[in-house]
Amino acid sequence: MFLRNEWYVAGLSHEFVERPRQRWLLGEPFVLYRTASGRAVVLEDRCPHRGAPLSSGEVCGESIACGYHGFTFDPEGICTHVPGMQTIPREARVRACPVVERWGWVFVWMGAHHEVDLTRLPDYHWLTEPGWEGRSEYLSVKANYGLVRDNLLDLTHARYVHRKTLGTAAVTDHPINTEAHGCGVRVTREMPGIEPSPFFRLMGGFTGLVDHRQQIDFTPPCHVVINTRVRSTAGSAENRSAEFHVLNALTPETERSTHYFWGLVRNFALGDDTVTETQQRLNRETFLEDLSILEQQQVLLDCKPDGWRPIATRNDGGCVQAERLMNRLLEAEVPMRKVQ
Amino acid sequence: MFLRNEWYVAGLSHEFVERPRQRWLLGEPFVLYRTASGRAVVLEDRCPHRGAPLSSGEVCGESIACGYHGFTFDPEGICTHVPGMQTIPREARVRACPVVERWGWVFVWMGAHHEVDLTRLPDYHWLTEPGWEGRSEYLSVKANYGLVRDNLLDLTHARYVHRKTLGTAAVTDHPINTEAHGCGVRVTREMPGIEPSPFFRLMGGFTGLVDHRQQIDFTPPCHVVINTRVRSTAGSAENRSAEFHVLNALTPETERSTHYFWGLVRNFALGDDTVTETQQRLNRETFLEDLSILEQQQVLLDCKPDGWRPIATRNDGGCVQAERLMNRLLEAEVPMRKVQ
Amino acid sequence: MFLRNEWYVAGLSHEFVERPRQRWLLGEPFVLYRTASGRAVVLEDRCPHRGAPLSSGEVCGESIACGYHGFTFDPEGICTHVPGMQTIPREARVRACPVVERWGWVFVWMGAHHEVDLTRLPDYHWLTEPGWEGRSEYLSVKANYGLVRDNLLDLTHARYVHRKTLGTAAVTDHPINTEAHGCGVRVTREMPGIEPSPFFRLMGGFTGLVDHRQQIDFTPPCHVVINTRVRSTAGSAENRSAEFHVLNALTPETERSTHYFWGLVRNFALGDDTVTETQQRLNRETFLEDLSILEQQQVLLDCKPDGWRPIATRNDGGCVQAERLMNRLLEAEVPMRKVQ
Repeated sequence: MFLRNEWYVAGLSHEFVERPRQRWLLGEPFVLYRTASGRAVVLEDRCPHRGAPLSSGEVCGESIACGYHGFTFDPEGICTHVPGMQTIPREARVRACPVVERWGWVFVWMGAHHEVDLTRLPDYHWLTEPGWEGRSEYLSVKANYGLVRDNLLDLTHARYVHRKTLGTAAVTDHPINTEAHGCGVRVTREMPGIEPSPFFRLMGGFTGLVDHRQQIDFTPPCHVVINTRVRSTAGSAENRSAEFHVLNALTPETERSTHYFWGLVRNFALGDDTVTETQQRLNRETFLEDLSILEQQQVLLDCKPDGWRPIATRNDGGCVQAERLMNRLLEAEVPMRKVQ
Repeated sequence: MFLRNEWYVAGLSHEFVERPRQRWLLGEPFVLYRTASGRAVVLEDRCPHRGAPLSSGEVCGESIACGYHGFTFDPEGICTHVPGMQTIPREARVRACPVVERWGWVFVWMGAHHEVDLTRLPDYHWLTEPGWEGRSEYLSVKANYGLVRDNLLDLTHARYVHRKTLGTAAVTDHPINTEAHGCGVRVTREMPGIEPSPFFRLMGGFTGLVDHRQQIDFTPPCHVVINTRVRSTAGSAENRSAEFHVLNALTPETERSTHYFWGLVRNFALGDDTVTETQQRLNRETFLEDLSILEQQQVLLDCKPDGWRPIATRNDGGCVQAERLMNRLLEAEVPMRKVQ
Repeated sequence: MFLRNEWYVAGLSHEFVERPRQRWLLGEPFVLYRTASGRAVVLEDRCPHRGAPLSSGEVCGESIACGYHGFTFDPEGICTHVPGMQTIPREARVRACPVVERWGWVFVWMGAHHEVDLTRLPDYHWLTEPGWEGRSEYLSVKANYGLVRDNLLDLTHARYVHRKTLGTAAVTDHPINTEAHGCGVRVTREMPGIEPSPFFRLMGGFTGLVDHRQQIDFTPPCHVVINTRVRSTAGSAENRSAEFHVLNALTPETERSTHYFWGLVRNFALGDDTVTETQQRLNRETFLEDLSILEQQQVLLDCKPDGWRPIATRNDGGCVQAERLMNRLLEAEVPMRKVQ
């Protein structure tokens, strides 16, 4: 059960090319392609003729021709050509999803066309904003997207999962502040005067004590922006400052798997590709540590006994609020979907 | 749900040897072997003693001894020996299927013994008839046998799936004629005065315009014979002629997989093994192109939304008639099966 | 459906080390580890915090800290530390299984703590008793543990499955005697004056006729001890004697897979490591022959038709009695489990 009237990330811009690509989104098959004029298209990947994948076919100008018998569909999903036929069956169409391409990411609206709401497009503007530098990547996770979200909302896991890179006892020694508002959840942790983590020593050159702030913003259905700001503690010999945004879009592939699109941008060492390579590699390795836990967690939750529920502590404040918000949104949307 | 009172192909003759082989047919396990006297045998591959596979055992003369505790069964499926026992339990028997071996193929009757009907044996006589030359092969397809049948009944797919070998626009430019009769469906397409396809250029040496006729005969439950005849168009400088039969027996392994036995015979270049090698290789490569589409199609149909139905055009005439005929036969047979 | 109030083998002693290991027992995930003080521990491997595996974490002294957020549990399964929290939620505990380590094997009680019954610990004392020599090993079997048990209770299969090593016609030529008693089943076969099997020729140096006795003891839920005694037949030129115990603990991993712990001990050639290596290798190869049959048998029984039942002969006496005993115990235990 997924929220429909929302923006998800269907892919990175460079994944939309002339050669069509199949990708499952919210448990259903879609084909991604880029038209001759440069438009990114997301269509249902099941030809209404015989059920073959359009993605086995070829892009012709703006349209795509099925690889089985050549039924051709335009970016609206309307069949415009049936080989050997003069008339085209009216019901020959596939679902087309509204698409917005921005900041190098392709967003897709999975709900009703008449409800498309551009004001609710999630904000990842740092990806292209001057003064910020970094890159986007993709990971496939064999776990529900909610487990990935909760991973990002409780960063105390860094001390255990990432003890070699991000881990510091500070993360569990300092409490979080959780604020839920109508359209999201914010978790903040202030860690003044702590030792810098191995990551910040390496990336930011910090050696003395730092004030480290984590601010995590969850926006339904699956968007998490982590802002990490590290500054030399007042009074220390150093006077450094560095900031990162970790941008996370967790698109459900199925109930048990997730397309994890992530970007990492920094506000220093601009133009230095070596730094970019290093930050991407370190973050990728860090996320792969998470993946291992998340995929095992999924297996264990798949067979949890009846009535099993997670135990929440204060550090789970963000997870609890996010879950509550998502349930409220699902309760509001799903009955309406049935009425339609 | 499969038709039972029908002939299916259980294997190619050369697959029946002394060493037993397990093969699933219509969702159930069978063992294939050849007796000392040369008889091809098809028995249920589940020993009634403990459920072990007879195919793990050994052929002894006409019989097969289970590889677990040695229970021995004759070609009728009757237990003739239990090691260490004087008396044999009466219920110790496995299902034996009536078998007919002809033209290098082994046909098996999957229904009631008292209803065996030799007159309904499908016709693949070209495999051994003088004046025709070619070979048989086997492919495993992870798709329902009906999807393979429909692939063969609508050859317009050649233009898209096989565009490098068989494809020509002619196949969609010329309409088909579909005839359904009580015991089968025939689809015919006449393509007079067209450019020869790459396959016929290579195999038949055609360079000028040709009259190309396709005639496809479907016989329930799973037999499709395609006759392709190509002749130099009257009035052209050339005067060539060539004919192929593509013989297709699509035996259900399970609801989602098929044993695809196929033969290809031609009426020219007799005795030329190089031509035979080439035609087999080209056809095998062509079928592998189909497999890729069919297996993806199966995945997409497995998760099709409620109420999804394929859209039929004129070119689907053969598929629609074949489906209708199969449904009629199933409706007639299945209730009788329950009465028995 | 498994018996709970019983001792199963969770692992070999050397498998319990500081680094935690996940193992599924009776369809549920457990973590095995050894504490700093040397105690073998078996805990539910699903952290009550978020469902992550404790086995992804680290052993700290006597306790284990979850690899996700550091929740720490003692060998009783009680949470003793939550990072960053002063108070520990009362419900933060995992199931802990009573453990007894003996003879190099670790036994685990899968039922209620207040019903632990040490008098029912199965007897594998030969593993460490002076006068006996051999080793323990582990095999993973993709078949229900009952199929492995029945394999051991009807040794006539040796003639077919192990015809190159253990096989001799004698095993089916001589009848068994089956005795069921309240807490187990014993099968005995006396084979006086037979040719020694290849195994006994090689291991025991027998060349003349032998009196070969097999005695198989099944103790619920999954323990099978086979005593094989071979002596030169009275009056023959030779005067040799050799005895083996094959020790088998068949712990259900799931309904369709088994942890097979086995040991093999002999009462001769003590201290000769070459003989030990040979006996282990031969027995391992023999069991791998069984595995192949058992895993195929599981597949065939998974899809057996409604009403299919195995046929029992005199040689199945042990299997039939064991099945009956297990059903009686399950019928007695399961309703009580529901009341609790």
